[in-house]
Amino acid sequence: MRDVAVIGVGMNKWGELWETSLRDLIAQSALMALDDAGIEEVEAMYIGCMSSGLFTDQEHLGSMGPDYSGICPVPGTRVESACASGGAAFRSAYMHVASGMADIVMAAGVEKMTDVDGGGATFALATAADQEYEVYNGVTFPGLYAMMANHHMKKYGTTRDQLAQVSVKNHYNGAKNSLAQFRMEVSLDQVKNAVMVSDPLTLLDCSPITDGSAAVILCSMDKAKSLTKKRLVKVIGSGHASDTIQLAQREDLSSLKSTAIAAKQALDMAGRKINDINFAEVHDCFSIAEIMVIEALGIAAQGKGGPATADGTTAMTGKFPVNVSGGLKSKGHPVGATGVAQIVELTKQIRGEADKDRQLKKADIGLAQNMGGSGASSVVHILEGM
Amino acid sequence: MRDVAVIGVGMNKWGELWETSLRDLIAQSALMALDDAGIEEVEAMYIGCMSSGLFTDQEHLGSMGPDYSGICPVPGTRVESACASGGAAFRSAYMHVASGMADIVMAAGVEKMTDVDGGGATFALATAADQEYEVYNGVTFPGLYAMMANHHMKKYGTTRDQLAQVSVKNHYNGAKNSLAQFRMEVSLDQVKNAVMVSDPLTLLDCSPITDGSAAVILCSMDKAKSLTKKRLVKVIGSGHASDTIQLAQREDLSSLKSTAIAAKQALDMAGRKINDINFAEVHDCFSIAEIMVIEALGIAAQGKGGPATADGTTAMTGKFPVNVSGGLKSKGHPVGATGVAQIVELTKQIRGEADKDRQLKKADIGLAQNMGGSGASSVVHILEGM
Repeated sequence: MRDVAVIGVGMNKWGELWETSLRDLIAQSALMALDDAGIEEVEAMYIGCMSSGLFTDQEHLGSMGPDYSGICPVPGTRVESACASGGAAFRSAYMHVASGMADIVMAAGVEKMTDVDGGGATFALATAADQEYEVYNGVTFPGLYAMMANHHMKKYGTTRDQLAQVSVKNHYNGAKNSLAQFRMEVSLDQVKNAVMVSDPLTLLDCSPITDGSAAVILCSMDKAKSLTKKRLVKVIGSGHASDTIQLAQREDLSSLKSTAIAAKQALDMAGRKINDINFAEVHDCFSIAEIMVIEALGIAAQGKGGPATADGTTAMTGKFPVNVSGGLKSKGHPVGATGVAQIVELTKQIRGEADKDRQLKKADIGLAQNMGGSGASSVVHILEGM
Repeated sequence: MRDVAVIGVGMNKWGELWETSLRDLIAQSALMALDDAGIEEVEAMYIGCMSSGLFTDQEHLGSMGPDYSGICPVPGTRVESACASGGAAFRSAYMHVASGMADIVMAAGVEKMTDVDGGGATFALATAADQEYEVYNGVTFPGLYAMMANHHMKKYGTTRDQLAQVSVKNHYNGAKNSLAQFRMEVSLDQVKNAVMVSDPLTLLDCSPITDGSAAVILCSMDKAKSLTKKRLVKVIGSGHASDTIQLAQREDLSSLKSTAIAAKQALDMAGRKINDINFAEVHDCFSIAEIMVIEALGIAAQGKGGPATADGTTAMTGKFPVNVSGGLKSKGHPVGATGVAQIVELTKQIRGEADKDRQLKKADIGLAQNMGGSGASSVVHILEGM
């Protein structure tokens, strides 16, 4: 396989973007990434998107993406793995370049989630779970993650305050992110006293509904050196694994096997240990998710994700900063865009281009973990500055 | 890039499969392909599917595919490019192996289309067109292809009989296909006198609504030689291109630019000319589509696709057999499965394993052309027996 670098990144300001359509969202970030790379053309485009069909009655982004980005007849491919769609699109784009089939490929991600009525977004998101065995019986994602939280609390003694601290930390970080949807800090009491969604998870334990997009340009390392003067960001590890789509069929409700396997693949490929990594962007769709993810990655021991959050290990100034971007919780979670936005954040941190108040001092190697459903699919990437 | 071979194929009997769910469909063909290859494991799985969200309220096939095929934690990735989803999934799987990331990868395709009420299938299929500029204004795919047909008839003198002959030929072939949905022959008069759908296209000019799946196993050539004693089928060419999603924005309504570009890429990669190819499976979603596709591929000159169909050039016994499987028209068109089923057919023909009455005598090099929307995306592959 050839070495591959990220040479351009783009991301629009996320939020409830009533005046920006699905096609506009794709084009905005795609054009920003091209500008950032200083190029006008790519040879292929991947678009991570979970459910443009249910959210906006529009499939076939493989045509719409290149078309509205103004780059037809460049081939477009939409990639879907629920909320891990963006990570999966990045991985497909990476393999496209690594294979030698093309030198320059774009990985974009998008979700336009606010154009549906009432429970439409919850319904669309629930299609990432098992319709016949989970959703038809009444459970949606807050309920599934609440079950995981209760199991984790019972098994490991994880506390309500530890869960809430994930949201407190991520909103503290996201308040400093100029592209985040919710740029305000929240307190432990605010999280715990917010409207209950599914016990023990309140509204402030849950990531929001968001319109947004992100895009990155991947390039063969040889060509990258002649194309850009910015710090080259090399893809040194890629991992991807699945688990049962039903939570009930898992061996253990309170660990994320797919993330552990994908992380091992990525670390082995990179020839690194988790402690060689400087920082991580992870999939905190619910507060309990971040705690389980940092355990699966080995940032904290199994069952110790709560204490590691409470003691500041994963804070911006901690030993292993996690979600310096604000994570899904504060930055927003346009599902198909999330995995690509994680790569945008890693690249900006490694280049030293993050917002001033949240640029890490040591950010040479970063890890991105993107997850679908209740952990039924996970994608992990590791990027290193050259 | 490494050489890659197809070493296993599987396809269930297509039709209105009321007792077979989406997950069953995926697993059936996946297990058949593993059996055919004589293996039990793959390293990754791609699933081409256009709209499991709108057809069955189920996304996240990247988890469901491996899960119900019994191969978790193997990573799964769903690939969508409307009706070209299967071809795009095969291309992703090809690059996965060609890159060296894995040795053995499955490409599956599926669509469960009959589980929606009334116009639900037409609505879901229409999401491959531009919702805001085409579908909201009342046009669905029969209307779009009827416009292309009328333009082609006016510009090139293509006749109603020539259009109908596509269906006559494909039903003649499909009647001999043991896995086809509609195994009956039709006459020119039957096609022309069938219920009008969108002038000039009658019901028998249109491909049907189908439940079905297909799967193939790709393997690095080195490993393939030690795994199978069957004739190795090498992927020698792969091409993929996009065009505007709106028909109205094309330079020309009666030619398929994306197919012409993808075919050129695939032929250039293979180092062949179109006349070096022995046979082709092409995307005859409507009778006019096959005529326009054979022109874009160079099997017939521009404007001469009608006469080439009428004079038997593309018949099973003709100079360049097209859709010996029965094509989408007779075999059925479960949209995400179609592109993978084309690879199944190419492999079986090249191996000499097609149904007895329709096995071609000369079938060493075959071409598959899979198309999304009104030609807004096209994928072309060329396979050769070793």
